[in-house]
Amino acid sequence: MIQKLRVLLGEENAVQVYRHSRDESSHLPVEPDVVVFPKNKDDIISVLDIAKRNNLPVIPFGTGSGLDGHAIPIHKGISVNFERMNRIVSFNSEDLTVTVQPGIKRKQLNKAINLHGLQFPVDPGADASIGGMVATNASGTTAVRYGSMRDQVLSLEVVMADGTVVTTGSRAKKSSSGYNLNGLLVGSEGTLGIVTEVTLKLHGIPEHTVTARCTFGTPKECAEAAQTVLMSGIQVLRMELVDEDSIRQVNLAGGHSFPEAHSLFFEFAGTKASAEEDAALTREIVLEHGAENWERANTTSESNELWRARHELSYSFRHIPGMSQSGGDVCVPISQVAEMVVFARALIDESGLLGGVFGHIGDGNFHTLVVYDSSDSRQTAAAERINDLVARKAIDVGGTCTGEHGVGLGKMKYQELEHGAALSVMKSIKKLLDPDNRLNPGKIF
Amino acid sequence: MIQKLRVLLGEENAVQVYRHSRDESSHLPVEPDVVVFPKNKDDIISVLDIAKRNNLPVIPFGTGSGLDGHAIPIHKGISVNFERMNRIVSFNSEDLTVTVQPGIKRKQLNKAINLHGLQFPVDPGADASIGGMVATNASGTTAVRYGSMRDQVLSLEVVMADGTVVTTGSRAKKSSSGYNLNGLLVGSEGTLGIVTEVTLKLHGIPEHTVTARCTFGTPKECAEAAQTVLMSGIQVLRMELVDEDSIRQVNLAGGHSFPEAHSLFFEFAGTKASAEEDAALTREIVLEHGAENWERANTTSESNELWRARHELSYSFRHIPGMSQSGGDVCVPISQVAEMVVFARALIDESGLLGGVFGHIGDGNFHTLVVYDSSDSRQTAAAERINDLVARKAIDVGGTCTGEHGVGLGKMKYQELEHGAALSVMKSIKKLLDPDNRLNPGKIF
Repeated sequence: MIQKLRVLLGEENAVQVYRHSRDESSHLPVEPDVVVFPKNKDDIISVLDIAKRNNLPVIPFGTGSGLDGHAIPIHKGISVNFERMNRIVSFNSEDLTVTVQPGIKRKQLNKAINLHGLQFPVDPGADASIGGMVATNASGTTAVRYGSMRDQVLSLEVVMADGTVVTTGSRAKKSSSGYNLNGLLVGSEGTLGIVTEVTLKLHGIPEHTVTARCTFGTPKECAEAAQTVLMSGIQVLRMELVDEDSIRQVNLAGGHSFPEAHSLFFEFAGTKASAEEDAALTREIVLEHGAENWERANTTSESNELWRARHELSYSFRHIPGMSQSGGDVCVPISQVAEMVVFARALIDESGLLGGVFGHIGDGNFHTLVVYDSSDSRQTAAAERINDLVARKAIDVGGTCTGEHGVGLGKMKYQELEHGAALSVMKSIKKLLDPDNRLNPGKIF
Repeated sequence: MIQKLRVLLGEENAVQVYRHSRDESSHLPVEPDVVVFPKNKDDIISVLDIAKRNNLPVIPFGTGSGLDGHAIPIHKGISVNFERMNRIVSFNSEDLTVTVQPGIKRKQLNKAINLHGLQFPVDPGADASIGGMVATNASGTTAVRYGSMRDQVLSLEVVMADGTVVTTGSRAKKSSSGYNLNGLLVGSEGTLGIVTEVTLKLHGIPEHTVTARCTFGTPKECAEAAQTVLMSGIQVLRMELVDEDSIRQVNLAGGHSFPEAHSLFFEFAGTKASAEEDAALTREIVLEHGAENWERANTTSESNELWRARHELSYSFRHIPGMSQSGGDVCVPISQVAEMVVFARALIDESGLLGGVFGHIGDGNFHTLVVYDSSDSRQTAAAERINDLVARKAIDVGGTCTGEHGVGLGKMKYQELEHGAALSVMKSIKKLLDPDNRLNPGKIF
């Protein structure tokens, strides 16, 4: 069988098998039986056919930048790497749409279309593949303006478990025709079908942007100021909370010198007049709500440094040699954000572990990242406890246990609590569309 | 059985049975066996139980303002009217969310929340119920800014065919937790479950609005100007195309005196500076693209008259005594709009029938409404031919046969053409969740 896949899809070796055993999370690596590199949809159909005849799981793999184990082949099987399916299939600038293969990375896509005055704005930080972003319904810093992947995907071409190829939408901006398979497949983490093409909405590049940051004495003040900005109706492009310990960590890891205090990072975008007006109104609001300052980036390079630092944040905690990381990714109703952030920060402080609270405060979506020594059972338990309590409290206040990372392995245990009876409906859909549990088994449920 | 429903749910009579036999479309009326007026979710569960034991269909009914026969009980059975389930369950202004029962109408909802500076902006014209708007994934004039219902629904409480009650989301703004049942249920036209509560996003009321209109010599120029405005990235709140014959009809029916020429109606909203800037930029663009004028509404009452006329437009064609109407509702990629509008207008002109082309041009969504005498077989065939050709061409150019009205009865025949193999997946989900085909049978498929 492996020989057959080799002939079909090219070489693979021990290094590849290791690379496909893990992602950016601390979940235990598991090596696949084989890694394949399909070049087109027909290759995917062949892989599914071989998998069926050999009763093997099939696990899609983008770039391995996932944060909850989605691409780890926990039941072994065939890891399907999309790096050879990374083309732009068609670019329709007049329609503000593009159709791509799932292996294309978001920076590669933007590089190709930015020349035409257009952008694909969803920005999860990592240079993830579009397919991976579809799988987890990724979002990131710009979701407060543009929404998540589900809001940006117009249509998918998907190979279903039985080898049927379906198209889930059209290139029209909206539709009331038939069931919304499009939204069902986005965020299904490779468990319902294998995506082979993605049609995305594109957006104009705003003419003018303003970047600014401000600091506060407490995370509560940060969150309350952010909430007020949001309720005022100002259309921020980005609004990020970064707590004191996170700033310290990113300064240390990246050689920055941001003031080590609880901060909000902002970006405003539009015409010059509207972006400047939004920035001025926001400045007023945050100063009224306890901001100690308002520092505006004066040059593009200052602005770039700020957003680079924000992107490095997660990595600055995740790449401490010899240490493991446990990361929460909850999303709560806006009114609950201040309390939740204070709660998460207090849990980290009590534990004595290194960790930070930061995230997309404009969506009510934040991350609680804790660094621990996995050979120390006390530290391991403390880290797990923090994320467990944060996830449960998020659900309890009317939110969700994952705002953008997806369920993967780490959030399975909260699915029943969060979804109740709806979980049975989800499971029945999984069973309907993948009766042999061939596609990314052991994830979500 | 009917006696049992009467005891449970109150009186019903011949007038009610007639009212529930039809909607705003020209589809043939069919009377239900009985109409019920549930007061709460338990009543719905009882209705489903009685329906199961008597093998009767169950058809949800909002206000009867649907445009493609969704609420017509074509296989008879129990029509479930939601007018007694019209409460606001909880209003969370700090979260920008509200939870309502499905029978509440959109104007009633807005009346209650506008006082708090918030609005629910989706506006299909008719004063539809929120439940009906969920069922069809309704949108309307403001979708170009706010999207369709699916973009606004955070969570649903749904009684499934087997009587299980599920909740499809949370009050968080985004989620990557589990399958997106929320988006699947929105737009499912009462065929997968009966919605008993809807949690919606709310939005601030913009501080300033500008309304304007302009005329063009041809529909092509109208559509091209609209396309250019859209590509410029200006965030219009409303951008409507209304062709010459439609203006004539609405002037006649409503006593208005708008210039009888192909027109674009605009609304801009935001802070004073941003709305005025958007209006000024748009004015420049349309004048460069052949607009003959730019008339700004100078008073609130002028602005209100314009939007009232736009809302009356469909009714002005639909309520001509003794005549029937056949309405298309396609949505196409933006680059195809100009060609499609010209195509639709030419078909009406060739037919010699009265009709108009108008719609939400910023979404690529427009309506082709034709008036005919249903006792005249030539006219009937001509009207059907126009909408058939428009629907097929919309699908052919990469669009959809319905942008906002839903499939109902009229668009069933295009589902295979539009969805191909995906239609089997949709049918299998219907069979999974409603194995007895109890819920609104004969719709969509």
